[in-house]
Amino acid sequence: MSTAPTQVEPQTTIPPSFEGDFALPGEFPLEAGGVLRGASLRYALYGEVNTARDNVVLVCHALSGSAQVHEWWPAIFSAQGLVDPEKDAFLGINIPGSCNGSTGPSCINPASGKPYRASFPLVQIPDIVHSQALLLDSLRIDRVKLAIGASIGGMQVLEWAIQFPTRIARAVAIGAAPLGAMGLGLNHLQRQAIMLDPAWKNGEYSPDAPPRHGLALARELAVCSYKSGELFCQRYGRKPDRSGEDPWQDAGLSAGRFDVSGYLDHQGEKFNRRFDANSYLAITRAMDLFDPTRGYATPSQAWGRIRARTTLVGISSDWLFPPADVAAIAKQITAAGAQCEYRELVSNHGHDAFLAEPQALLEILRA
Amino acid sequence: MSTAPTQVEPQTTIPPSFEGDFALPGEFPLEAGGVLRGASLRYALYGEVNTARDNVVLVCHALSGSAQVHEWWPAIFSAQGLVDPEKDAFLGINIPGSCNGSTGPSCINPASGKPYRASFPLVQIPDIVHSQALLLDSLRIDRVKLAIGASIGGMQVLEWAIQFPTRIARAVAIGAAPLGAMGLGLNHLQRQAIMLDPAWKNGEYSPDAPPRHGLALARELAVCSYKSGELFCQRYGRKPDRSGEDPWQDAGLSAGRFDVSGYLDHQGEKFNRRFDANSYLAITRAMDLFDPTRGYATPSQAWGRIRARTTLVGISSDWLFPPADVAAIAKQITAAGAQCEYRELVSNHGHDAFLAEPQALLEILRA
Repeated sequence: MSTAPTQVEPQTTIPPSFEGDFALPGEFPLEAGGVLRGASLRYALYGEVNTARDNVVLVCHALSGSAQVHEWWPAIFSAQGLVDPEKDAFLGINIPGSCNGSTGPSCINPASGKPYRASFPLVQIPDIVHSQALLLDSLRIDRVKLAIGASIGGMQVLEWAIQFPTRIARAVAIGAAPLGAMGLGLNHLQRQAIMLDPAWKNGEYSPDAPPRHGLALARELAVCSYKSGELFCQRYGRKPDRSGEDPWQDAGLSAGRFDVSGYLDHQGEKFNRRFDANSYLAITRAMDLFDPTRGYATPSQAWGRIRARTTLVGISSDWLFPPADVAAIAKQITAAGAQCEYRELVSNHGHDAFLAEPQALLEILRA
Repeated sequence: MSTAPTQVEPQTTIPPSFEGDFALPGEFPLEAGGVLRGASLRYALYGEVNTARDNVVLVCHALSGSAQVHEWWPAIFSAQGLVDPEKDAFLGINIPGSCNGSTGPSCINPASGKPYRASFPLVQIPDIVHSQALLLDSLRIDRVKLAIGASIGGMQVLEWAIQFPTRIARAVAIGAAPLGAMGLGLNHLQRQAIMLDPAWKNGEYSPDAPPRHGLALARELAVCSYKSGELFCQRYGRKPDRSGEDPWQDAGLSAGRFDVSGYLDHQGEKFNRRFDANSYLAITRAMDLFDPTRGYATPSQAWGRIRARTTLVGISSDWLFPPADVAAIAKQITAAGAQCEYRELVSNHGHDAFLAEPQALLEILRA
């Protein structure tokens, strides 16, 4: 069921030493009250777990990522100072709800014998983290030396640090915070775009006729939110589409595009080759609902549970997870008595800087 | 054909002294090469044109506005210092392509006897301004004392100042500049949203079955771009929808919304009651293509034509028309030898501040 990209640049091909599926308990209870039955997690292990079982780095992925860390974040393997690629083991775990190997909307619901599709239960970040903790139990990893992730991956790291304080030695969350109103609104519109596509059929589309146009539109809007206006201006400006279209021509419905629109459409098309619309709906909801202090009497009670040495990284041009929101959390964690430092990645790449500028990110983390 | 809002707050009801339709010449030539046949402009005049015919204020409207200035920008009538509401006459002109009275996609194409719909020719900002100049000719108004507008209205003002330098004594353009790559991309996605709605039918929808969902989604995305993240956070934060929906409940396809999403959906619904999807497509294209220096050997040649005392206003939190872009134009105009000052409206309302904070705007303009 994996639809992760298989094309990998030669220099980034560091194959996992082990890939497998971990079966969750028959009935895995969920935050929202339901259960996930007969579910499994796809995971990938890179390198060897040492005898002390204390050399594991947990790498949490973002919305469209996968357990195959070497495919989407090869730079993490060269994070000298943070990790030792020669001696450390890296663990990537696909999140439930995804379409990259773990149980998600495209999988068979054992209760009905049919794919879940739109009936996939609501999976939240705490559910994801609890499922990962069970996998770590099965691997006899009591404590990871580092949990690191960006975006939804960073949400998992923060949730881990609060829920399982003794199991994380060091935590690094990049461009992650409870989503603000603008982000909530944009996620809502992305889901509307998918549901507007007549091919969506209330989620009951067949795998060979998915809501391509709706998913493309959702992705294109997301891409806008992952980038900065400044970067777009530098890259595309007001240039016409590079394939030769002319926006100034009166061509009616086939009006010529500007370059940025051609770029966005290309991103939308590419995304259709590797992602599923119902998974997109499921994971953006998990993203919306992330708030690790919810359910505690005060936010300070939640943040104060953290025992990991924690680093939060804000990205200067990120308007989906504004750096001020990330810095405010770092301040709250420190105020709650836990150990947290805030660092800012100065980049005009927007939220995507964690993927687009890995070297700059690593330099900041090493500092 | 007017679908402009008819509900007006009592204190803003300053009815026009005259409303009418101005017939453009039988064949009105367009920038892109075609012609608009048998077209007309809806206009509204407030107050009386004096004997010298030199007391007219031209008020240019934005995307969804109309000739009925008192309905969408009542504050302009109290712009003491800029205008004298007792002595000045105000002229509002609906732009061709709109659905608020002037010829647009819903009107009959004399060549076919059927509505234009998606075949409405490409109308650009220079076309709009040229058509307005013909209306001014017919009213025997050689020169306006002030041309003022925001957003697409401000684009018209800049185009007026360049195309007809001697006909504008003073020009005020607010939150207007050639759209940057982010704005071009977002407009592209808004058009995609309309065209994704199966009710759109390549533009050939009937007036009683328009692409409501697509137009709503387009409007909701536009509303995000008209507001600032900071304003959204203050107003909506992470609160659940005020009607009592619970985002944390596992309610499947009828998942509860956050407050910001309820607000956006409400804006989308409201917009459907007053705007037409094909007009939206037409006017966002005009917005994309605006570049008043296009066709000149250098931008300086275009800006140097300006003779009006010009004021450009940038809005501090506007990310659709970033204030730096507006300030850069003011600098270019000055460098080209024309008279231009830049003022910044400090507001967290985003692009919409010209409507949301009229008093602050007027204070800046009076300074």
